Formats: sequence, structure tokens, C-alpha cells
Amino acid sequence: MFKPQHMYDREFGTGNGYSNGNGYTNGNGHTNGNGNYNGNGHVNGNGKANGAKVVKMKPMDSELLREQGHIMVDFIADYYKNLQDSPQDFPVLSQVQPGYLRDMLPDSAPERPESLKELLDDVSKKIMPGITHWQSPSYFAYYASSTSVAGFLGEMLNAGLSVVGFTWLTSPAATELEIIVLDWLAKLLQLPDHFLSTGNGGGVIQGTGCEAVLVVVLAARDRILKKVGKTLLPQLVVYGSDQTHSSFRKACLIGGIHEENIRLLKTDSSTNYGMPPESLEEAISHDLAKGFIPFFICATVGTTSSAAVDPLVPLGNIAKKYGIWLHVDAAYAGNACICPEYRKFIDGIENADSFNMNAHKWLFANQTCSPLWVKDRYSLIDALKTNPEYLEFKVKVSKKDTVVNYKDWQISLSRRFRSLKLWMVLRLYGSENLRNFIRDHVNLAKHFEDYVAQDPSFEVVTTRYFSLVCFRLAPVDGDEDQCNERNRELLAAVNSTGKIFISHTALSGKFVLRFAVGAPLTEEKHVTEAWQIIQKHASKFTRNDHY
Amino acid sequence: MFKPQHMYDREFGTGNGYSNGNGYTNGNGHTNGNGNYNGNGHVNGNGKANGAKVVKMKPMDSELLREQGHIMVDFIADYYKNLQDSPQDFPVLSQVQPGYLRDMLPDSAPERPESLKELLDDVSKKIMPGITHWQSPSYFAYYASSTSVAGFLGEMLNAGLSVVGFTWLTSPAATELEIIVLDWLAKLLQLPDHFLSTGNGGGVIQGTGCEAVLVVVLAARDRILKKVGKTLLPQLVVYGSDQTHSSFRKACLIGGIHEENIRLLKTDSSTNYGMPPESLEEAISHDLAKGFIPFFICATVGTTSSAAVDPLVPLGNIAKKYGIWLHVDAAYAGNACICPEYRKFIDGIENADSFNMNAHKWLFANQTCSPLWVKDRYSLIDALKTNPEYLEFKVKVSKKDTVVNYKDWQISLSRRFRSLKLWMVLRLYGSENLRNFIRDHVNLAKHFEDYVAQDPSFEVVTTRYFSLVCFRLAPVDGDEDQCNERNRELLAAVNSTGKIFISHTALSGKFVLRFAVGAPLTEEKHVTEAWQIIQKHASKFTRNDHY
Repeated sequence: MFKPQHMYDREFGTGNGYSNGNGYTNGNGHTNGNGNYNGNGHVNGNGKANGAKVVKMKPMDSELLREQGHIMVDFIADYYKNLQDSPQDFPVLSQVQPGYLRDMLPDSAPERPESLKELLDDVSKKIMPGITHWQSPSYFAYYASSTSVAGFLGEMLNAGLSVVGFTWLTSPAATELEIIVLDWLAKLLQLPDHFLSTGNGGGVIQGTGCEAVLVVVLAARDRILKKVGKTLLPQLVVYGSDQTHSSFRKACLIGGIHEENIRLLKTDSSTNYGMPPESLEEAISHDLAKGFIPFFICATVGTTSSAAVDPLVPLGNIAKKYGIWLHVDAAYAGNACICPEYRKFIDGIENADSFNMNAHKWLFANQTCSPLWVKDRYSLIDALKTNPEYLEFKVKVSKKDTVVNYKDWQISLSRRFRSLKLWMVLRLYGSENLRNFIRDHVNLAKHFEDYVAQDPSFEVVTTRYFSLVCFRLAPVDGDEDQCNERNRELLAAVNSTGKIFISHTALSGKFVLRFAVGAPLTEEKHVTEAWQIIQKHASKFTRNDHY
Repeated sequence: MFKPQHMYDREFGTGNGYSNGNGYTNGNGHTNGNGNYNGNGHVNGNGKANGAKVVKMKPMDSELLREQGHIMVDFIADYYKNLQDSPQDFPVLSQVQPGYLRDMLPDSAPERPESLKELLDDVSKKIMPGITHWQSPSYFAYYASSTSVAGFLGEMLNAGLSVVGFTWLTSPAATELEIIVLDWLAKLLQLPDHFLSTGNGGGVIQGTGCEAVLVVVLAARDRILKKVGKTLLPQLVVYGSDQTHSSFRKACLIGGIHEENIRLLKTDSSTNYGMPPESLEEAISHDLAKGFIPFFICATVGTTSSAAVDPLVPLGNIAKKYGIWLHVDAAYAGNACICPEYRKFIDGIENADSFNMNAHKWLFANQTCSPLWVKDRYSLIDALKTNPEYLEFKVKVSKKDTVVNYKDWQISLSRRFRSLKLWMVLRLYGSENLRNFIRDHVNLAKHFEDYVAQDPSFEVVTTRYFSLVCFRLAPVDGDEDQCNERNRELLAAVNSTGKIFISHTALSGKFVLRFAVGAPLTEEKHVTEAWQIIQKHASKFTRNDHY
């Protein structure tokens, strides 16, 4: 069970460490001796010293925030420490059964306050077993939810300032820093100038790639309906591939696009699961001939399934030729494009209308931070603006333009100060380190790929571009059904060890294992251990036992 | 300028406080003396001691997180302290000019890392002036973004664990705690049993009320289109009032509802701006007669403009009679309904299909935390489910039901562990304290209302139910135009002092001032000061100068 040593030492003043007498609770005067740490924490927490006087609770007290904030920092730092030092206490994939928590917690909220100690005890004993540890160094499933010290600090500051930047006025810094930092990131990605705030375009931080694709589908939909009339909604068609993220289909359905007008073009291994441009042009011609109105193409750089890359140059030419909105979903792999050697994967981006990447996936920003750039910000604003009287406010701007009000660039009115953490990641690491973090992950994936390639029982299924390896136990005597079943069993076996967590996908009917490097603590030894675990559990299926 | 004293003392080891020798950096061994605080912070931050060896940076290091996390806690605690002690340094409404930040920051991201000290210096000198201080005790605009020590700690833990709970499997605790805590909160609100997870309904935490109304509009739309056929989308009509939040209209437009089919019924002072049920039934009958298909009513308990309350009992009866989805948006005032004396405002909720409140507005949860309950969870899931192969996972459930996968209850696939902070707020304060926090705010608003009522130059414009007072300088000789102009000027004048921030709305053509209590530090003295500032600036318009 998770024992955050520092926290307990400190809360009870048991001797060593910084809670014993000469520790920092003693230095600056706001608690003395074992003052309000002694006992019921939060309950008496607003008492200034010695716990003698029980003061009525208040929702905010700077000194209580300080004291309990320090406890929480230690709790979290201990968590990361323990993920590395005591992995046996943290099954990467949670091993609990459905409904496990219901019996461990009361049926209703407490009437009276409980202490932070009780709460953190419950986190350790009741919540932790139900956590699938995305931050474990042995987490290799899906794509990582990448955090970092800087991203974490950014979230803290965000939560601390707790401003709501729906309009410029409600915190000018929140809007202006977002504009500036997304210009910074656009430059790191060498995006075309029209995505910068200095032109007609600009960037905005959405919560997720799902929100990003939704808002651009809506912008494109309203742009075309303005031209052709809204009664033609049932004629609108969109294009992706059978590898496009499920959020694209969902976004279209949300927007009222008819399901049968969502064309998900077939891909196969001949293009390494990238969208074939010929299929796209053929589909468009066919649709036009039948009176449909093609208005949106969703291209992907680094699909969720296998990190496949749609060829932006030919797709962009087609989009341009037919006047169709081209969106590029680079949620995962877009992050790698800050490295010159990966930038080629978004060559052709100059013909796109919008570009999205998730900085919480592989730029260490902590959830949720999904920058979206658009070529024409007015198309977004036209689709999403609201103007309630109670938000009207005269802001004098010297230039012809009005200020940016990000509420009109997204689904929700309210928004957190998300650019803070992106700004902090970029400054506290610098782009050189960020590139190296990404290269390290790619190298670790390459390392794993080499292991796979050297073992004749296994095969690498797709060409690896980034930090994802798609692999499987190879079929024996061409028996694909048996092969799928074995890989399915292997997946369940390795994940049930709790030592690593990998996931799977399906490609051309093959059940494929995915090994994605991206957790911030992962090192070479974790990759090697993971391979050993996989090999060990595969041995029952392989002719030569490796052990 | 904002000077976080503790942080600077510590980072440079300047003597007093807990960084000098016997401070906690010395106690537990992971840094010694002035080790890696000495100088360039983050750059050498991964060095274990003495800064002698510069180690390659890593995105995550538990000891660096610990050290810098403590610095950030102090920075944030100092911020709250200074908001109270040095309000003159923190204009509540930021006084910067548009574009102010562009010239203060470089054009591009740094190549090399910068130190946390440099960054926090910039936060103090460059970001803070552009912050509108929602957490200031003298913030009375819009509705508050309510945080608390517990809510802040919850966000920290959320950011620290950094799990992604899109399916049950990807962190069972994230899904299960959300189910349990929303059952807790439903019970505190005395919501009908069908909103509990034990029936066909259940709760889910959306990011905002905007997301909440969007997902239920989509669920209701798809439910009706399934019956009548999707070609009838242009016949669908929805109902709200002219006081309904702008996100309702936006949600309908996103979902492809025709703008001219959005009926926003007129309200006036005769119902204190609540929706008149007779108007609603008349509109429905009229629409039915013309072949339209009424499918959605958005009622509001506590409108954004004036905290008006739509009468749920008659509205619910109408919804039931015609088989129309009734959504109740109680984003702000729903929080007050945990107090028995305010519960009456949601009497009639048993006929609603969905109910939403923002726990980040007035339940101290920190953004973003917007619980939504639905009567029939399958209607949500039918509209929003996705089933990509790479998320398929066999989870054995003993009961007939499958596990909850919250990805199918919301727009986005990814989701933060938002229930943590709500759980922590409920436990660390207990419901009794939470009710008292709300009552304190209501009493402060009442206090302000009394001031207004006692000054003949002013008038209270609407009946106050909760913690919002709608008031204005009264018209002189019935001149409404002059009155509006004067109130507009008064608003600008008081906000330009930086001492308080209040906002406005329009009601029946009147320009009305809004005074909303809800910031977690607000006490009676801040309300009194606010009134004095308002009176002082009003004196130029009033016959008897009050000073």
C-alpha cells in the first residue's frame, strides 16, 4: 500500500525530516511547534496557532492553503518516487473488480468535516488500488498523458489563480499569453504564417483533440451552409479514413451531418495505413456527380491506432482544388514535429485550414491542453460566437481590430488559464530539451522494436515513425485466427501481471499489440523489463522457450 | 508589484525563514545546504546534491517536483495572503491595455531552459498586472469562480496523478468515485431517485454548464429524430426564455437546430424574469398546430443575468404533458439547493430529464466541475458513444450491466479525474460547513441589498433570492435614458478604481448593476467598502453628496 513517508512524518511530527522542531513550520511564524498539525488538521485548520481556539471554517485561508499545500506536494512527490522505487505496490493496470469502491465508501457525504489525514489515508488505501498508473515508467498503453514538473507547476498556478478567461477583460493575461505562446509553438512547428495571430488566423487551446475537431467541423459546416443554404445539410459529406480518430465521426454526428455521408476511406498496409489520395479524389468526384456537397477532410498525422500518417501534400492539393476544409489531426505526432527530423510529416500543412496537436500527449503539458490553429479565425467565431448583454464591455483598442474573446473560439463560455502551463513547459525546459525528451522516447521505442525484430516468434506489423511500435506474435503456419487469439491472450496475460500496461488495436483484421513510449519516467531499463515480461508470457506459444 | 516573500527568501537562502540552514531542505537529505537552489534552479534541478554535476534534464523527477512544488505552494499562498493584506497591489479588474503583454515577452520560445525564479518573476511582474482577480475578496462581478483550499488540493492531486479516465479500465477509481460522489451530491440536493446511479439515470461531471446543455440537447435531439426520422430536423423546436444562458442557443445551433426554431419566450418584472408557463404552453400549441416538433425545454434556476427562477412545477407539467425533454440549468443557484431553505427553488425537479449545476461556481470546487444528472443515461450514450477497437477491453461484470465508460457521456474522449476535488470539498468541509458558506454569502448579499434600499438615490431592481443583488441608480424624473447612461458611467468609474469589480446586465431595457457575492475570501468589511466606493462615485449624480 502507498505510504507517503514525508507526509506522515510531517503531519504527526514523528521526528526526522522537516517537521521536527527545526523544520520549516517553525521558521516563519505562521504555525509554531506542532500547532495546527496536531490532530484534526482541516477541522481546526483555520486556527492560527496551537489549535487552542476553534475558529469557524472559511473556504479559503492562505495559511491553511500553505500548510496543506505542502503536505499535498509531498504526497505527490512521494507518489512519483514510489512509482519508481516500489513498482510492486503500483500495478500499472489497476487490478480491481467493477464496483470495488462502492463498498469502501459511505453512502452519503459527511455532515461534519474530516481531516486531510483521513482523506489522504483513503486516497492511499481506497483510491490508489483503482488507479491505472498513467505516470508509471512501465506504462506503454494508448498514448501517454504526458506530464512533467513544469506542467504540474503550471496546473498548480492555474488552479491557484483560478481566473476565468472567457473574454479578454476577465483576465487580459490569460488571453494574451495564449496568443503569444501559441505563436511560439507555431514557430517551433514551422507552421505557415497564416496560422499566426498576426494574420487572419490564430491559435486557441482546446481541452482535447475531440473539441478541436468538433469546432472546426462546425466552422466548416456553417461556412458552406452560408453559401448553399441550410436546407442542404443532408447533402453535406465529409472524408476521413478508417483510421481516423472516432471523435471525427462523433463531431460530424453532433453537427447533424448524416451518418451515411461520413466517408471513411479504406486503408491497408500498402500505405502503412495512411489515407490513399486517389481514393479520396475518387470519392469526391463520385459524390459531386451525385449532387453531394463535399466540405470537410480530416487528415491525421500519427493515428491513434498505429501512428499512421496521411500524406498531407496530395491531400492538401485535393482540398485546395475542390475548396474543401482540410483539418489536420496531429494530436500525438504533431508534438514530434518540433524536431526538424520529424517536421517532414507535416509538409503540405500550408494547404490546411486547421491544425491540432495535444500538448498533454507528448509535450509534457499535463491535461488538458490541446492547441488548435486555424487559417481564418472568423470562420470559427461566426460559428461559435455569443453576445449576452452581461458580457458586453467597451474595450478600447487602438487598432481596427477588436480584442480576442476566446469564448467565441470554443464550445464552452468558461475557460481555465491553460496557456500558463504550456508557457512554463516551454520556458523551464527550453525547446532543445523538449526535442531531446521526444527523441529519447523515440529511441526507446526503437530499442523495443529491435527486441521484437530479433525474436523470430514476433513481428513488427507497421513501419514505425515515432514512439509507437505495433507488433504481434507472428502467425504459425499462416493461421491468422489462432494468431489473433494468441495475441489476445498474451495481452491479457502481461497486463494482469500489473508490471506493465500495453494496449492493442486491429489492423486489416489482425489483432495487434501496441507499445507506446511517452510516460515521463520511462527509461531504457523499463523498456527492457517490459520486453522480458512479454517474452516470458509469450513462451507458452513459442516453440523455443526463452527462459 | 506582487512580491512572494517566502519564495524569494527560500530560493536564494537569504537568511530567515525555512531556507536558512536548519530549514527543511536540510533535513531530509535530498538537498544539502543550499544545494540545487543555488543559482539556476531548473537547469541543474535534476542534480541530486550540491549542484556539482549537471545531469541531463528529465521531464519528471520526484525530488525536483517536491522542491519546486513547495516553492509554488508558497507563491500561491502568498498570493491569497496579499490579495487580503495588500489589495492596492491587485486591481480587481485588470487595468492593462490590449496588447500589453506582447511587448513584454520575447517573440519565440527559448532554446535553453530558464529558471523557476525567472519564470515566477515574470508571473509577478508581467502576468499579474493582466490578471482580473476572481479570487479577490472584492470581486463581485458575474458569478464567482469559487475555489477553496480543498478544491485547490483536489486539483493538485488530479494534476499529480494525471490519469485519463475515458473508460472504466483506464482508472476504475476515476469512474467509480465520480458515480459515488454524484450520488452523494444528488442526495444533498434531494434529487429524485431516478437521477441516482442505482436506476436508469446517473451523474457525470462535465467541464461546464455549456457542455452539459449541449450533451442533453444532443441526447434529446437524437431521441426524437429516432422516432420521427432525421429528415425532420428542420421541424424541431426548442424553448427557453430571453433570460436563458447564451449557451443554450449555441448548443442548439451546434446541433443543427434551425435558429428560427429557437423560441426564447419574453419575460418581464411581473414574474421577476422567470419564464411564464402560459407563454410556454401557448408557444407549444402554436408550434404543434403548424407542424413543428417541440422536443426540448431549457428551464433555469438562477439565471446568469439576474438569478431569476423559472417555475419548475408548471413547466414540468407541460413537459410531461407533451413528452418534451426538460433540462434544468441551475449552474449557479443549484449549489444553494443543498440548504433546505433553498431547496424549494427546484421543487418540480422530478419531472425534469436532466439537471445541471456548476460546483466550480458556488460549491468551492475549483474549475472545471459541472455535475450533470440525467434520468435516462442510455439517451446520452446513444447520442455520444464511440467504440474504437483500440479501446475495446473485456471487463467482467457480475451484474447484467456493463461498466460505465464516461467517454460516452460527454463530447470528449479524454477526461480528468474531476470527482477528486468534489469528493475532497465534501469531505474536508462537510455538508454543514458548505451550507454555512453559502448562507454567509447570501447574508453578505442581503447586507449589500440593505445598503442599497436605505439610499434613496438607488433602487433594488429585482427580488433577490440568492447572493446576487440587481440594483441601479434610480431614474430622476422618470428619465430612463439618462438613468441608463448614469449607471453605465458609474459602473465604469467604480471598476476603474481597481478596488472592486462589479458587472452589469440589461433587464427590460434597463441598464442594471450586478453585485454578486461568492469569492471565497469575501467578508462583511469588503461588502461595506464596496458600497462606500459605489456611493462615492455615485455622488456626482445624486442631489445630496454623501461625503
